[in-house]
Amino acid sequence: MAHAVSPLAPTRVPAMPDIPGVRFAAAAAGIRYVGRTDVLLAVLDKGTSVAGVLTRSKCPSAPVEWCRARLAAGAARGLVVNAGNANAFTGKTGRAAVKLTAEFAAKAIGCRPAQVFLASTGVIGEPLEARKFAAVMDDLVTRAAPGPWIDAAEAIMTTDTFPKLASATARLGDTTVSISGIAKGSGMIAPDMATLLSFVFTDAPIAAPALQALLARGVVDSFNAVTVDSDTSTSDTLLAFATGAARARGAPVIDRAGDRRLAEFRAAFDAVLAALAEQVARDGEGARKLVEVVVEGAVSKRSARRIALSIANSPLVKTAIAGEDANWGRVVMAVGKAGEPAERDRLSIWFGDIRVAHRGERDPAYDEAAVSDYMKRSEISLKVALGLGRGRDRVLTCDLTAGYIAINADYRS
Amino acid sequence: MAHAVSPLAPTRVPAMPDIPGVRFAAAAAGIRYVGRTDVLLAVLDKGTSVAGVLTRSKCPSAPVEWCRARLAAGAARGLVVNAGNANAFTGKTGRAAVKLTAEFAAKAIGCRPAQVFLASTGVIGEPLEARKFAAVMDDLVTRAAPGPWIDAAEAIMTTDTFPKLASATARLGDTTVSISGIAKGSGMIAPDMATLLSFVFTDAPIAAPALQALLARGVVDSFNAVTVDSDTSTSDTLLAFATGAARARGAPVIDRAGDRRLAEFRAAFDAVLAALAEQVARDGEGARKLVEVVVEGAVSKRSARRIALSIANSPLVKTAIAGEDANWGRVVMAVGKAGEPAERDRLSIWFGDIRVAHRGERDPAYDEAAVSDYMKRSEISLKVALGLGRGRDRVLTCDLTAGYIAINADYRS
Repeated sequence: MAHAVSPLAPTRVPAMPDIPGVRFAAAAAGIRYVGRTDVLLAVLDKGTSVAGVLTRSKCPSAPVEWCRARLAAGAARGLVVNAGNANAFTGKTGRAAVKLTAEFAAKAIGCRPAQVFLASTGVIGEPLEARKFAAVMDDLVTRAAPGPWIDAAEAIMTTDTFPKLASATARLGDTTVSISGIAKGSGMIAPDMATLLSFVFTDAPIAAPALQALLARGVVDSFNAVTVDSDTSTSDTLLAFATGAARARGAPVIDRAGDRRLAEFRAAFDAVLAALAEQVARDGEGARKLVEVVVEGAVSKRSARRIALSIANSPLVKTAIAGEDANWGRVVMAVGKAGEPAERDRLSIWFGDIRVAHRGERDPAYDEAAVSDYMKRSEISLKVALGLGRGRDRVLTCDLTAGYIAINADYRS
Repeated sequence: MAHAVSPLAPTRVPAMPDIPGVRFAAAAAGIRYVGRTDVLLAVLDKGTSVAGVLTRSKCPSAPVEWCRARLAAGAARGLVVNAGNANAFTGKTGRAAVKLTAEFAAKAIGCRPAQVFLASTGVIGEPLEARKFAAVMDDLVTRAAPGPWIDAAEAIMTTDTFPKLASATARLGDTTVSISGIAKGSGMIAPDMATLLSFVFTDAPIAAPALQALLARGVVDSFNAVTVDSDTSTSDTLLAFATGAARARGAPVIDRAGDRRLAEFRAAFDAVLAALAEQVARDGEGARKLVEVVVEGAVSKRSARRIALSIANSPLVKTAIAGEDANWGRVVMAVGKAGEPAERDRLSIWFGDIRVAHRGERDPAYDEAAVSDYMKRSEISLKVALGLGRGRDRVLTCDLTAGYIAINADYRS
């Protein structure tokens, strides 16, 4: 299970502010792993609002269904996350395990089970022994503290090679509020051990509907703009919690996402989501290069997104980048297969600042040596201009290497 | 460029009947390769009808555009195919090269350029030196003969590790007619060297509109049901030629695809297409296992196809199979991400005859050892039953191995 830390990992862990109203602790419940923490409990003060974005899979895990049913109420007092078993495709047993886990946590926290949110990541199809949580739950509540965040980030890792954390502060009215988030995910999205989970906490007093609107919009250019292997998990879960503790320090209560006072907060919140999402791409299974794909001049942002994802998910584009080969012919292929409006004879392509193709032909000034030098970098930017309209988009991905095959062909054995 | 022959290659070359009205020859024009043939000319008797299915890419190659414009007339006297340069993304130069090639061939054959069909496979974006064809064209016409077919199949190979041929005979009226076809393709579909090209010839007297209808229907469950890496080429070309020579032996002229006399021919024609398509999956880049994906109980065939392709294109499913791991959790994931109607609690999954998951849970009788034994085979069948309707489909693919990465990461260098 142990893989070398990604060469694209951040060189240092960011300073992570405490979030008033949030306390947490991690424990080793022995779900699957030995000698490491595998369960995280977050205890949230009364009055915490919650919002969430969940997988679009038609075969979602039991905890995803649990969360979906409880988001409408918008209130949270606890979060339980485990690594090692996804509790997906587990039928009635899985639904019972989810209910039991929420009951254990609710009893220890002193709240209703419906106020406990759940996420699981790990193997699919194996029954999750919820009773293992019972043994550690009281101790988790007792030990719960505002930090250190790295313990929380480490407890939810699976094939991740580094813990993922990000934070920001913003002014809300005349008060400084904080945002701290953690994530896990390594194949962007894989059913077994690389499901994407992310949890973001703030002390800003933001009502659940406004928080939901912020999150739904924020995810578009962050987590929804990252792909490692195009495989969507049964368990993807992004939850945001707003404790409202900053209200006591004079922060205004925000009921609508359109509230102008939210502008600075929104930017900070989006930055935290983007930083976490980028770390997922940096920890893509087997990744040696971080790849930014920019599409300009499409007929719409939506069209640009589809073309960018067609490029970012192309095994041939990704293997070419792994081979440090500026194989722009494969980029043409990926544009062509996207099914979106594109005209070959208006198409231009850049690697970094070097234009390699222009208006449907190889750039007359194409210099293979310069491009080859560029391709040796660990961060590659690839741009396509379609020349049709003003639609623009950007997605992040990584290269496709023999390391990805090794990790995923050997995983269960 | 030389790769070991796929372990999934057919053990022998099929007997390939001559097709009256078709003569061909191959030559080394030096387009890109040294010491091998790289251009194929087929000379077709007067009265030959033609049909074609071409890439859906929005950035098609110059020869694809040439063929598309000339299919409506439905008449062919020649076919020129080259390997080594795809003449794609080559702008005006590419259009000029196509025109020149058709003119050279037409002059040598004694027909109009519009009666010459063209296909190119190889590197994208490099100008194709059409004049190299002029040097060999007269000689090709002089040497043209009804066989041997293997020379034709070898002349169009790129990363293919074996030549692809298939044939069949059928009764049409009281006359026996023949069908012989060749194909190349290794990534099903890749922009550089693994573009799918296939050419099928028959002496049956079938008018162009009927041949087109046969081909459009035949491709659905053959070439369109094979995927290696989900990447669609700029150059995919499948052409069928019917010389009508069997008319002299008493075969009836067929004007409509719905003609009942076509039943046996249609079955033979479809079998040739299916055999060629299967060989493409068997020669998937880096493939060690041939994988059949069957989806049953979907709401429609179209829905079953989408789910089958979602499974067959999933990097995580393909790497699991490469690792001989019956990781059915990844199959659940791929069903879930397809976006088609599916109900987790009705889903069952088989590897071979072994049911591994039933109605949304691991099969109670699941026997890991038996499944692991099955996964060691070189041909794997994976079946999903959705339990929703009567839609069924089948696609072929291969596993995703470190060999695919090696071939595609090192290709141009």
